[in-house]
Amino acid sequence: MSDHQADLIVHARWIAPVAPAASLLENHALVVRDGRIVDLLPSALAGEKWQSPTVQHLETHLLTPGLVNAHTHAAMNLLRGIADDLPLMTWLEKHIWPAEGRFISDQFVQDGTRLAAAEMIRSGTTCFADQYFFPASAARATVEAGLRATLFCPLLDFPTPMGAGPEDYLRAATEAMDEWRHDPRIQIGFGPHAPYTVSDEPLQKVVTLAEELDVPVMMHVHETAGEIQMAVGNTGERPLTRLKALGLLSPRLLAVHMTQLTDEEITLVAETGTQVVHCPESNLKLASGFAPVEKLRQAGINVALGTDGAASNNDLDMIGEARTAAFLAKGVSLQADALPAAEVLQMATLNGARALGRDDEIGSLEIGKQADMIAVDLNRLETQPVYDPVAQFVYAATRDQVTHSWVGGRCLMDNRQLTTLNDPLILKNAQQWQEKIAGADRD
Amino acid sequence: MSDHQADLIVHARWIAPVAPAASLLENHALVVRDGRIVDLLPSALAGEKWQSPTVQHLETHLLTPGLVNAHTHAAMNLLRGIADDLPLMTWLEKHIWPAEGRFISDQFVQDGTRLAAAEMIRSGTTCFADQYFFPASAARATVEAGLRATLFCPLLDFPTPMGAGPEDYLRAATEAMDEWRHDPRIQIGFGPHAPYTVSDEPLQKVVTLAEELDVPVMMHVHETAGEIQMAVGNTGERPLTRLKALGLLSPRLLAVHMTQLTDEEITLVAETGTQVVHCPESNLKLASGFAPVEKLRQAGINVALGTDGAASNNDLDMIGEARTAAFLAKGVSLQADALPAAEVLQMATLNGARALGRDDEIGSLEIGKQADMIAVDLNRLETQPVYDPVAQFVYAATRDQVTHSWVGGRCLMDNRQLTTLNDPLILKNAQQWQEKIAGADRD
Repeated sequence: MSDHQADLIVHARWIAPVAPAASLLENHALVVRDGRIVDLLPSALAGEKWQSPTVQHLETHLLTPGLVNAHTHAAMNLLRGIADDLPLMTWLEKHIWPAEGRFISDQFVQDGTRLAAAEMIRSGTTCFADQYFFPASAARATVEAGLRATLFCPLLDFPTPMGAGPEDYLRAATEAMDEWRHDPRIQIGFGPHAPYTVSDEPLQKVVTLAEELDVPVMMHVHETAGEIQMAVGNTGERPLTRLKALGLLSPRLLAVHMTQLTDEEITLVAETGTQVVHCPESNLKLASGFAPVEKLRQAGINVALGTDGAASNNDLDMIGEARTAAFLAKGVSLQADALPAAEVLQMATLNGARALGRDDEIGSLEIGKQADMIAVDLNRLETQPVYDPVAQFVYAATRDQVTHSWVGGRCLMDNRQLTTLNDPLILKNAQQWQEKIAGADRD
Repeated sequence: MSDHQADLIVHARWIAPVAPAASLLENHALVVRDGRIVDLLPSALAGEKWQSPTVQHLETHLLTPGLVNAHTHAAMNLLRGIADDLPLMTWLEKHIWPAEGRFISDQFVQDGTRLAAAEMIRSGTTCFADQYFFPASAARATVEAGLRATLFCPLLDFPTPMGAGPEDYLRAATEAMDEWRHDPRIQIGFGPHAPYTVSDEPLQKVVTLAEELDVPVMMHVHETAGEIQMAVGNTGERPLTRLKALGLLSPRLLAVHMTQLTDEEITLVAETGTQVVHCPESNLKLASGFAPVEKLRQAGINVALGTDGAASNNDLDMIGEARTAAFLAKGVSLQADALPAAEVLQMATLNGARALGRDDEIGSLEIGKQADMIAVDLNRLETQPVYDPVAQFVYAATRDQVTHSWVGGRCLMDNRQLTTLNDPLILKNAQQWQEKIAGADRD
């Protein structure tokens, strides 16, 4: 006879809770009440202890924490594949910025974020860090989808459809913070674009405001060798030196890309507790350089994982990104034992949660945390036989093997069916945008 | 009124024939008779000119040549994930060779190749180059699956379950050549393992026999820096120098991996017409080094693409491999325009056919060639919107979007259903092998 009432019990063939590190449970059940994990116990004992109206038996599946995509530009999904095989600056200046200048609006961001949210749910992401225009629209699409997000409000020296300059962007950010302060799924931060697009004064304001409002900051830092050469040419110093002087380097900062780092800079990043977000596929595709991931990890730096926007990557698939991260860490360090499967899974989950300051709530399957989790069916030809389920997940599974997704215990995908979003409508809407945008890009 | 009778007409939203290079047809039909492509014409005109009992309308699909996996060890699928995150020599000596020594047999190879064949069909491969034990068993599984293959018979100095030494291996090879000489789907070649496992005398025999019998040769060459150091230490020369002296370097040789190459060696490879097979994911995962793909292509060398075996990679997914190849070529050359999407598709199709000397028959969708082709459905959230279908295929699609596969006009997969293989049985069989092998690996 059960003496506890739960909302959901998930029995899984394997559970990789991520904390404790590299642990693996077999034939266990995870019990959810009020959106949180309240028990993790052998399946055989769950029936005696717990009762629940919903019981899910996943007999060939691996259950993991939901993936945390620590850097993307979700709405750019509408620009996926608009311009490939080009260097960063040509890509930005000739294609992306013109298209954005012409089309970015509340509607574009809402539609694009909805398309991205559907893709993220279908590929196992339950929380994402977004850095894009009109974050309040992105927040609405996120809430509609049932995902969690930290939305970093843009900040640039120059005008865009969202504002004339820094004052407009900062005002939009603080307004969004105000609007969303009571929704636990949505967190708002500051997203100054990059050292080469934001001058000192607005950056100083960000440091002060972020401290005051206790919010995180995200910035593209040391993405390419070119931007560093330019900074050194113009100012005599490397961007990281400037960011340090401005007081930006701290655990509050998520420094994205970081492909160009001297050993001294790695020490500086470690000492200041700065978070690093690694986007391997974007760095490869734009030929930006190789982030020294293994060195960063050895220095004790928290390295999270992001897909970057679909216009550069070209997808929001964190499973593919995790695989590329594991491959590349080995290739770059010339050590085949660098970033093993269990550690890249941690990078794609708990480290992302940590970088966003959300690891008290999400990132691992531990009692007391939110039930943000996904199931991956390994019973496919492509992931058989199973000697090590986590290695099969990282090295051989694809996104279509993600069968279920829950955020705070709420099911967002049930055996591949989205429960919160209307995918045929989203597809059609994307095609309508394509017709509009492709015409303009050809002009 | 139609004046031509065909066996199959496929109407597709897009066709990427690969030859002419980078061409793209929209709303065209491909017409098949007696297994060969007999016409490629606008869909609107096909009905007037041709009639066929089978007409396929693929309204949201891209049709491409079937992918050619130019290097794998198919039966090793049964060892997928047995030992990950280890350097090549530890992986080989502590895990793979012991497992192979204990389990390799005709049955293992037949079962493993069947599992691999099912995976290859489901991920768009229609022809593969295999280098593994008991090639006659692999040939039987290949024919059963309806695929094409070139099977490179192993050759090593040391004994294995297949033979006591070089004489046994060479005899098995010539016997297999005899057995399969009349089946156009199967080609047999010589597969001396690597410079460090085969001595001069058997290699000289291979050169003579390959010339006499007009068959290709496949060898792992310059895979790691370690093996080159070892060779230089032992003999004073780099392996490529030795292979040149032995007369192995020629268009007949498929040199696999080639991560360690001086500029002089690149010139030598180009001058001798040696084929290179690039296996980027295996090279990354085993931390073997980066093949200088862009330099090889600039030197006019034919570079084909292979997944390597699933025990190192850990899948036979040529779409993922093509994406990694494109990413890595850009990353390594620091040129974002290196190996663009259309060229990596050529690498994954026509270049593989060329490397195997089969490009008269396969590798592109040209009139007169065999109808070896696949359809990829781009009407998914993850590949929308479509600005450039080939870029979406390479950079955003996954293997599950391959819906149809034909070899010589015969349908091997019809809307995700395998027509030649029994996948539940194959899955079960893989799990039985796993139980047997996992116990032994833990001993």
